[in-house]
This record gives sequence, C-alpha cells and structure tokens, in this order.
Amino acid sequence: MAELRRDPIVGRWVIINTEDSMTPDDFEKEDQTPKHQATCQFCYGREHQTPPEIEASRAPGTAPNTPGWSVRVVPNKFPALRIEGNIDRRGMGVFTLANGIGAHEVVIETPDHNKALADLSKEEFLEVIRKFCSRSWSLAQDKRFKYIIIFKNFGGSAGTSVEHGHSQIIALPMVPKHVLEELEGARRYHELRERCIFCDVIQQEYQDKERIVVENKNFVVFCPYVPRYAFECWVLPKRHIPHFFEMSEEEQHDLSLILKEALWRIKSCLFNPSYNFFIHTAPVNQEYTGSYHWHIEIVPKLTREAGFEWGTGFYVVPTAPQIAAKFLKEVKFNFQI
Amino acid sequence: MAELRRDPIVGRWVIINTEDSMTPDDFEKEDQTPKHQATCQFCYGREHQTPPEIEASRAPGTAPNTPGWSVRVVPNKFPALRIEGNIDRRGMGVFTLANGIGAHEVVIETPDHNKALADLSKEEFLEVIRKFCSRSWSLAQDKRFKYIIIFKNFGGSAGTSVEHGHSQIIALPMVPKHVLEELEGARRYHELRERCIFCDVIQQEYQDKERIVVENKNFVVFCPYVPRYAFECWVLPKRHIPHFFEMSEEEQHDLSLILKEALWRIKSCLFNPSYNFFIHTAPVNQEYTGSYHWHIEIVPKLTREAGFEWGTGFYVVPTAPQIAAKFLKEVKFNFQI
Repeated sequence: MAELRRDPIVGRWVIINTEDSMTPDDFEKEDQTPKHQATCQFCYGREHQTPPEIEASRAPGTAPNTPGWSVRVVPNKFPALRIEGNIDRRGMGVFTLANGIGAHEVVIETPDHNKALADLSKEEFLEVIRKFCSRSWSLAQDKRFKYIIIFKNFGGSAGTSVEHGHSQIIALPMVPKHVLEELEGARRYHELRERCIFCDVIQQEYQDKERIVVENKNFVVFCPYVPRYAFECWVLPKRHIPHFFEMSEEEQHDLSLILKEALWRIKSCLFNPSYNFFIHTAPVNQEYTGSYHWHIEIVPKLTREAGFEWGTGFYVVPTAPQIAAKFLKEVKFNFQI
Repeated sequence: MAELRRDPIVGRWVIINTEDSMTPDDFEKEDQTPKHQATCQFCYGREHQTPPEIEASRAPGTAPNTPGWSVRVVPNKFPALRIEGNIDRRGMGVFTLANGIGAHEVVIETPDHNKALADLSKEEFLEVIRKFCSRSWSLAQDKRFKYIIIFKNFGGSAGTSVEHGHSQIIALPMVPKHVLEELEGARRYHELRERCIFCDVIQQEYQDKERIVVENKNFVVFCPYVPRYAFECWVLPKRHIPHFFEMSEEEQHDLSLILKEALWRIKSCLFNPSYNFFIHTAPVNQEYTGSYHWHIEIVPKLTREAGFEWGTGFYVVPTAPQIAAKFLKEVKFNFQI
C-alpha cells in the first residue's frame, strides 16, 4: 500500500511507496567516468577558451586566466541570459514578455578534471562555498536582479554537458515560480503560527529521528518526509536566516563539511549517480522576506519523470525517506578524506 | 538575445531562444523500434497476464480477456494507488498524509505491438478517444475521487517501461497542484475580465497566426507562446467546456482526427521522438469550476531538465514556438492514412 503525503511548505502531494521501497541496488547504474580531459576547456592551460575570469582563488603570483587557480568563476560561454541592458517588460496581447537580461556564471570547482565535488578536500570544498557566497552577494548588488540561483548538474541524467566539475549561478530579473511558492507557503505559515515552517520541520525531524542522515553544530541533512525523488536530501542551516550569503565564517565552514559528506554518502551509497542540487535562498532587492529560511535540495537522478508527474505535479517516489536515510547513514565515511 | 516570457495562466516565466532556435536536426535522435514483442503482455493471446479487463472494444462474439479486441482497458498491474478503501486523511506533526486510495488503469490502444498511436487509422483512434471519455466519466461517478488524469508516455526518454502502445488513467482523491494553479489562474482572469483565459489565448493565436499548426471545426493545435519545451503543442477545443468527458460525439470525432495528425506531424518532423501528453480537465466531485477550459498538452522529449529548471520552475526553451510550428506545418500529412 502506498501513502499519500502533503508537503507542509508548498502543499504538493506525492505518492510514497512505503511498503516495498526500492533500495540502492534496484536502480539502473550509470558510468560517470570522465572521458574528455584532452580537450576540456575547464582544465589548466586552456583558461583562454573560457570568457575572462570574474573571480578566482589562485596561488600567489599567478596571473588571471593562467594556471595556478583552485576555484575559478567565469561567465558562461553560452549564457541563458545576457548581462547588458535594462529590463524592458511589456505586453503582447494576452501575453507578457521581457528582454533576456540576467547573469550566467560558471564556478569551476577544481582544476582536476577527474575529481568530483564529493572528493574535494575540506579546504578545497570550503573555497567553493566561499565563491558561492561572494558571487551571490556581488550579483545581489545589481538592482536589476531579483533572484540569484546556484545549482549543479552532475552526470548525464542530471543534464550536464561538461563533465569537468562545475556549478552554475544565474541571476534573474524576477523571482522564479518555485521560490514564490515556498515564500508564500512560509509567509502563510508564519501568519498562522508566528513560527518558521522550516524551523518547525527541523524540530519534527529531530523528534522523528529516522530521516536524519548527518548533522553538525550549524547544519542538519535529512531525507524529507515529503520527497519528490528517491534518496532526495535537504541541507538546512539550524539558524533561521533568509539569505544564503548571510552565513557566518563558521557556518560556511560547517556547510562545506556537511555538504561534502552528504554528496560523498550519495556517491558511495548509490554507485556514483547523476544528481542535481540547488540553493534556495530569499529574493534580493525586494520587500522583506524574513519568514524564509535558506536551504539546499539535493536530488539523485535515479528514476525519470513521466507524463503523470509532468501533468499533475504529483510525484511517485519509489523509496520511503526513512529507508533512504538508513542506507545513506550506513555508508562508512572517513572525515579525514 | 533570449526573450523572457510569462505564461498568462499560471504566471510561469520561461527563457526562449528567439534568435538562434534549434531545428529538428539539432536534437539527439532516439531509436523507438519495438523490440519485445515475443514476451509482451499487451499482445493478443496474453490477455491473462494483465488483470481482468474493465472495458474493451471487441469483435462480436469474442469473450472478455481473449483475443478479438481493438482497444482494451485493464487495471495497472503495479498501481501507484489502490482502489479499495476509504480516504483517511490525518496529521503527523507538521505533516499531512492519507492512505493511497485511487484508481490506476491502462488503455491498450491497439493489439498491434508495432503500431504507434500516431499510426492508428481514424476509426481506431476514435475508439481510443471514446475509451478515454467513458473511463473518465465512469471514474468520476466514484465520489472519493476529485481528479481524473489521462496521460501517455511514449519512448524511453518519456519514461515508458512498456513499448506496446498504451496510455494511462489515474483517479486521485485530491486535485493535483499543477491543475490547482491553472484553475486559480483561470478563476482570477475570469474575475478580472469575465472571460476565459484559454478562449482569449485561442483568439490571440488566431490573431498572431504564426504558431498555429492545424485546426478543424472543433479544435485547434498550436505551439504555445510560452512553452516549457521545444516543439510543445497544445490541443484546445474551440467550445468552452470545463470537462473532457462533456465532449459531443462530433467533438470526439474531430479530436481523434486532430490529435492523430498532431502526433503524426511530431513523429514525422522530429524523427519519432519520445513524448508525453496529458489531458487537463476540470476536477470532479468539487465545487463549480466553470472558468476552466479542458485541453491537451503534448511535449516531445528532445532535451533534458536540469538543476535550473528543477530549482526555479523557469524553463530554457531552445526553439521559439513560431519556428516549431513552421516545421510541424511543413510536414506533408496524408489525411487518408
């Protein structure tokens, strides 16, 4: 018998296979071995093949756009949106359109073509988190932008086109629909209870225990009670802050440790699957959104959406979250890696 | 330069590649040649491998669950939801859950393992549409159900697991999120203008002309101004009716002609791609939803969603809809097929 569950933030219903959950061995395996090192534009020595770098962590004395960097941020060569110009929003009959203004940056996470994000050292991972923070803060200073989304596509099933480890940052001139829904859900819950729904979900997770994968002083990772995908994981800061870039130094440090561990556990438990993650943070250059609580959602791509999910917004989830958490917890993780 | 466009019904923004649209030749091709005929449970002679049939169009004198049928409706062997029991909705801390009650049926569209839906004769296609109508009407009589969704997954990228031509029907005890959004959008527009947003979109499409693919007396097929995918097509009845199963005999006939032609054009123009379609209709056993206008959305699966789409609800569409419509219109279609 399946169970229907309703997400407490946006009200989405999903169908969870609670009785006969699929385990890691039941999913199709993918081969993520890097193949294209010889021609990779993100490798050392090919810095001139990307647009000039915006920011980089570099060894002292090395020049921009030359080797010697550890993390490098560059504009996307094929941007979804262009940085130049003013927003021009207008009507066209019943429709509304605007010119495609925005920013689209790429964070190259390591110079090592064969190193996955999950395999970076603690120091290397922290440097990536710092770039996420500094770039999203910097883009938020541009008053044209209302939202900064940071996301990662790893592996073919997650839609990546370049295998060298990288994440992306897009600045948008309007707040995207999925975020608006979470904002509205959080606002309504706050109006009703004068509490944060995300904080309450953390409390509920502590009470239920069985879905928590790992935690440290400032963060907790769990498989949410209402996932959309098998082995979906959420990373929540324990402190209620709306914006990702408001994190303290200590929180950045704790996030890099726990996100690395979460990705490593997913990699190890699920045979190095494709995955996406994205950072949901409050909008920028907007009215107060204090009831929001930033977080990261990680989705291993083990199954495929089809017409039912697409047409309804329901999801059929083959693995119950407490089963997923159990498998993810059982993986032996060496903190010294 | 890309263009940002806002859907007039649900308010979703998308990014359309208006200047350098991808054409049919630019997408990866998939091989959809059927392979598993020898063991197929949907073929003649293996009727006992499915649960007993609910409805079937059969040659006179043939018994249920034997050969002789042209369209056959059976319960799904691995249903997402179970038909037996009462809805039991309850709280679990901050969460809401319900037992997994619903119906999950399979419409086997043809006994011919190698015949795609697009290749059915006019008469065969009409029989499928009739089954869609009769089954959704019949399921709507069950007061436990609030929504009936009909959908099809064709090909591997669209998430099908059985290659023999079939569609699916799921009856749900609650109205799904995507439909609620459309209902709410249609309601608000009606409140503002005392007109139907879908009827207004049809008028706008007639005025702009360039996105219309084909029409007949009762239906029009066009590539919407705000698609989420390249070559997305919408099929809209010209008459404003909320429920799919309210169609007249003549409308059923016209729908079977135009849906067949739309699928055939997609198949022919895009090298037989994977696709999903679903029928969006008004909820059942609910308060009045007269501002809704039922329709079909067809989505060829030419590209893959990634972290950006997933995290934001924005879509990056590589082909402008008027370019897609132009290619779909150019295909030579023989009405006598």
